[in-house]
Amino acid sequence: MANNIHDNAYELEKAIRNSDEYQQLKQCYDELEKDEPGKKMFENFRDLQMQLQEKQMQGEEIGEEEAQSAQQQLQLIQQHEGIAKLMEAEQQMSTIINDLNTIITKPLEELYGSPEEEQQ
Amino acid sequence: MANNIHDNAYELEKAIRNSDEYQQLKQCYDELEKDEPGKKMFENFRDLQMQLQEKQMQGEEIGEEEAQSAQQQLQLIQQHEGIAKLMEAEQQMSTIINDLNTIITKPLEELYGSPEEEQQ
Repeated sequence: MANNIHDNAYELEKAIRNSDEYQQLKQCYDELEKDEPGKKMFENFRDLQMQLQEKQMQGEEIGEEEAQSAQQQLQLIQQHEGIAKLMEAEQQMSTIINDLNTIITKPLEELYGSPEEEQQ
Repeated sequence: MANNIHDNAYELEKAIRNSDEYQQLKQCYDELEKDEPGKKMFENFRDLQMQLQEKQMQGEEIGEEEAQSAQQQLQLIQQHEGIAKLMEAEQQMSTIINDLNTIITKPLEELYGSPEEEQQ
């Protein structure tokens, strides 16, 4: 039975890899790789995002000024066409991955309840 | 293409649900459900575990005394056969879910690098 699960997981991995959404994401990513200044801009923003996320996870408050500055940077980098395209492709891929997680974790959720319910 | 992904995800969900490991977990869980004191013990320990995890995620330190007390409670509840069986079944299911995640996230990891690498 466990082998069956793994086979199915490999099939799913292949389907993800062959999907239009993944191919689009990979293409956008590869294109930005070739554009050094764009890549740098994108990486800086990603670092900033991660810092803010870490802060949030550790229960620290994110100041209004800090949030505003991040928002401004987001607007700025989205004027770069390659970055804007990559971010859109990421958004679409992320929707799919969320769908998959919802589907796959359903059996466990039926036992334990969803994480949202648990937190209440 | 996206439909293909979803079809594969549903296949995987079915495989998880039909697996020996999931069936075993469900059986252990259902049995403990019928054992009110055992269930209570298990839930109390789970709550404690979650509290400690939250502390850790928020960067708070877990005191030695606190860790020792949790360890003692773990040893205590594992003397309950139904709980011990459930915890073992959970461990096996968790190994499978980790495997699945490794397989499924491989395409994205190839683009972005693994989380471990990113943290370095």
